[in-house]
Amino acid sequence: MLDNILSNIAFQMSILLCVALAGYILASRINQSAVIGEIILGIIIGPSLLGLITYTDFVKGLAELGAIIILFVVGLEFKVQDVFKPKYFFIALIGVIVPFIGGFLISEMFNFGFASSLFVGTALTATSIAITANVMREMGKLQTDAAKAIIGAAVIDDVLSLLVLSFSKQMVAGSVSFGVIGLVILKAVLFIGIGLIVGNYFISKWIWKFDKTALSKKYPELIFIIAMMIAFLYALTAELIGLSAIVGAFLAGVSLEGITIRQGKSYREGAEYLGIIFGAIFFVSLGVLVDLKVITWNIMLFVLILTAVAIITKLIGCYIPARISGMNNKDSVVVGFGMSPRGEVAMIIALMGLNLGYFKQDIYVSLVLMALLTTIITPIIIRNWLYNKGPNPKEFEFKHI
Amino acid sequence: MLDNILSNIAFQMSILLCVALAGYILASRINQSAVIGEIILGIIIGPSLLGLITYTDFVKGLAELGAIIILFVVGLEFKVQDVFKPKYFFIALIGVIVPFIGGFLISEMFNFGFASSLFVGTALTATSIAITANVMREMGKLQTDAAKAIIGAAVIDDVLSLLVLSFSKQMVAGSVSFGVIGLVILKAVLFIGIGLIVGNYFISKWIWKFDKTALSKKYPELIFIIAMMIAFLYALTAELIGLSAIVGAFLAGVSLEGITIRQGKSYREGAEYLGIIFGAIFFVSLGVLVDLKVITWNIMLFVLILTAVAIITKLIGCYIPARISGMNNKDSVVVGFGMSPRGEVAMIIALMGLNLGYFKQDIYVSLVLMALLTTIITPIIIRNWLYNKGPNPKEFEFKHI
Repeated sequence: MLDNILSNIAFQMSILLCVALAGYILASRINQSAVIGEIILGIIIGPSLLGLITYTDFVKGLAELGAIIILFVVGLEFKVQDVFKPKYFFIALIGVIVPFIGGFLISEMFNFGFASSLFVGTALTATSIAITANVMREMGKLQTDAAKAIIGAAVIDDVLSLLVLSFSKQMVAGSVSFGVIGLVILKAVLFIGIGLIVGNYFISKWIWKFDKTALSKKYPELIFIIAMMIAFLYALTAELIGLSAIVGAFLAGVSLEGITIRQGKSYREGAEYLGIIFGAIFFVSLGVLVDLKVITWNIMLFVLILTAVAIITKLIGCYIPARISGMNNKDSVVVGFGMSPRGEVAMIIALMGLNLGYFKQDIYVSLVLMALLTTIITPIIIRNWLYNKGPNPKEFEFKHI
Repeated sequence: MLDNILSNIAFQMSILLCVALAGYILASRINQSAVIGEIILGIIIGPSLLGLITYTDFVKGLAELGAIIILFVVGLEFKVQDVFKPKYFFIALIGVIVPFIGGFLISEMFNFGFASSLFVGTALTATSIAITANVMREMGKLQTDAAKAIIGAAVIDDVLSLLVLSFSKQMVAGSVSFGVIGLVILKAVLFIGIGLIVGNYFISKWIWKFDKTALSKKYPELIFIIAMMIAFLYALTAELIGLSAIVGAFLAGVSLEGITIRQGKSYREGAEYLGIIFGAIFFVSLGVLVDLKVITWNIMLFVLILTAVAIITKLIGCYIPARISGMNNKDSVVVGFGMSPRGEVAMIIALMGLNLGYFKQDIYVSLVLMALLTTIITPIIIRNWLYNKGPNPKEFEFKHI
């Protein structure tokens, strides 16, 4: 009976949304981003503490939907020329090399072996844009130079991480083939290039025309279905190529930015509403993923050092090129910290290393915790330290709960 | 690799939305309800024909979400006093008794045995409101007397079906306990009564007040999260009591009808956007469920007769009390046909009978197909025959696809 309830769809949705609500309230009380409240409460209801919810395939699926929808919504706020600039490529490149070296060295210091060290380095390369983008959105800072640099560099960063992953796998196997690496680069560049051209010229023109048809007048909801379908198709294509699905969803959003819809429903509004529900579920589920039970003192030490290395290497690796390309000091620091959350990308790489047998549960858990800690610490630093949105008792009244 | 793609979330979403889109186009071409187009294309991509998608747990979960959200949206358009009227109870009662007897007799004629016959009768009792409500919505007829009668009677009908199910199970076990049946009645009546009072007086007042807080001003999306949480909590409670989740979601919608939201986002709009995506998935998935491979000539004969009996008994069982309670002839016919779709409720009862060992795959498949056929036939009859929305070449232009 209890098992029945726990696996019940309505129960899982109720509890996830209830926890999201509590997360907002907690975040408001401690004056942090809602994301932090949701992750913390996710940990509390997860398997290691209350055990009210487990990371079932259904929750996993909803969280994936959430990540895809969030990046699609974020993409809808950017023009192509805002995101793809040479200086962002420069920031992304150095911001991948420094953490890779840092992660590799720290793992070698702990004597985890060559293959493990390569994977630890790889896991430190990829930035998770969902967190920072959402925090900047909450603060209304999404259209600042720093935010654009973070998002542009994070997208390019994801492509570079993919290349590092391919390189690491070949290193472990013993022979590096530049042909294979070249192919990976080619596929990624082609996908982004073709995806943007097709999206910006063909799909968005087609949607603009479709909006004027009688079919769209008869079924105004169709345009929203089409837009979401395109988001998921781009996400799928990105995954097939080996990029993460969210990069595809972001590209779809960028492609569909700026189309004026007259007859049909606003897909931007619709995607935002979807993002509210599934975004909340995504952030709660990040907390549910954390099983605190497996942590020993040794692992804790490694996790703390690894997290510090992860943040410092990304900070240095992005701050320096940002400064060199002419950004001011504060913006460069924001970019450095903003690129720090590793989130789900590092978790995916960790899972891959575990499945390939390169390391055991201990390093896997360490990487997951590092990803989570960078994810929790970054919004706190950006909000409270960099943008001075510290506690202010008068800012907030809260009477009716 | 292929398995990987088929179980990929982005792939499943893309294909479901793509099929929904094609379903709209097909429906428009043959001038039918979008629901029909979606179900037919669902059958085509399902396991028996193209095999592009299977009814995975994830698809099942999304479909359940869809059914809950649709009924919540429908509920948001009704006041309590619109739905719960004595004459709707009368329509529901006779509309349950006649199909039960009809189903029982036809199954006895085919010599399927007493237990099977009781379950076939039971499966014919419950109306699926999702289909008819959606068709009436599409046609802009949701605020007519007939639509109100259908929805009111269908909700009560669901409660009565639950009682019939309890009764049938006890009959098969050999001893009918009126105490147990009384308890089932009591729980259902209490849930509906308390749910409506709590929803209409306490929750809706609380939401109205919450909308004015600074928290709601800071996070306008919170009110939408709360509304959806309430929908799923009501759905969960209904399931725990033994009613179907969608009845709970409908009650939640009725409870939250008519609240004016100023600071927060409109949860009605948000729920409608969710309903567009997940409703489409729900209707496609009904088609995916159908495995045409298992059909033999014998089963086909039984299915056809059973479907005819299902429609005729519901038509008679609802038409007569509707006429007696003073509705005009046309409205009474619309109510009779509108109550005919059995949809997911009959499928759930069929699955229960199969799992309890009362009958084998043949009767199970027959019940599922009957549920589907009534679901496909009803919108066609209502649209084309009763409301005369027949083919009209000039009504629709379609140039840009």
